Amino acid sequence: MIVEHIGIAVKDLTTAIKTYEKLLGRAPSKIEQVEGEGVATAFFEMANGTKIELLAPLRPDSAIARFLEKHGEGIHHIAFGVEALPPHIDRLSQTGFQVLYNPPRPGADGKMVTFIHPRDTHGVLVEFCADRAEE
Amino acid sequence: MIVEHIGIAVKDLTTAIKTYEKLLGRAPSKIEQVEGEGVATAFFEMANGTKIELLAPLRPDSAIARFLEKHGEGIHHIAFGVEALPPHIDRLSQTGFQVLYNPPRPGADGKMVTFIHPRDTHGVLVEFCADRAEE
Repeated sequence: MIVEHIGIAVKDLTTAIKTYEKLLGRAPSKIEQVEGEGVATAFFEMANGTKIELLAPLRPDSAIARFLEKHGEGIHHIAFGVEALPPHIDRLSQTGFQVLYNPPRPGADGKMVTFIHPRDTHGVLVEFCADRAEE
Repeated sequence: MIVEHIGIAVKDLTTAIKTYEKLLGRAPSKIEQVEGEGVATAFFEMANGTKIELLAPLRPDSAIARFLEKHGEGIHHIAFGVEALPPHIDRLSQTGFQVLYNPPRPGADGKMVTFIHPRDTHGVLVEFCADRAEE
């Protein structure tokens, strides 16, 4: 299990990409819209494979738009990458975590994803993801 | 440059360790108090070297106690690990980021650390850290 990415909610993707290019000293490795989630994303890949994912809303009714309205810009979630989701969904459900998508749903970057509610994790929205081909 | 760790502010370290042991399926690799920062920490190391750092206050006047009072439990910062801090402090200062500790200060886990203010990074408290022996 790795830290696959850290999601950061931003108002405007173009502005935030410029900031993070300067902060991290590199260009984004991927820019992608996930229509199903109403979100535009940009990924910056670090040397150990963990990515920084900037997330900007495409629509005012998207989860990211609601997050920005409530909290402002900032860290939105941590994603743990696993080889396959079903064993982890079973393990987490059995130890008392509320798994939000079961079965998992398609996410950005060719992944299947599910989430654990922040109330179960001391205030952190936790994603678990696996490559789509592995499911 | 890697994502060295992600810091999560929690009220009680023992309770949070139990939760994250179940969430991540592993025991903490290190538990350490940083008296200078008034914080007790526990690290969980993931397969690609990135760590999850739980941070609980030792004193009511610590930065973590003030964060918890204002925001509640949740993600506190992202730390980028570099080989040596001075070139990055120069680079970041020259591109308009406010570097909070210059020179850097001792942090947890044998590191020297500095921070970039969230107002410069779309709401994210960003740490840069390097092994103490490298400085």
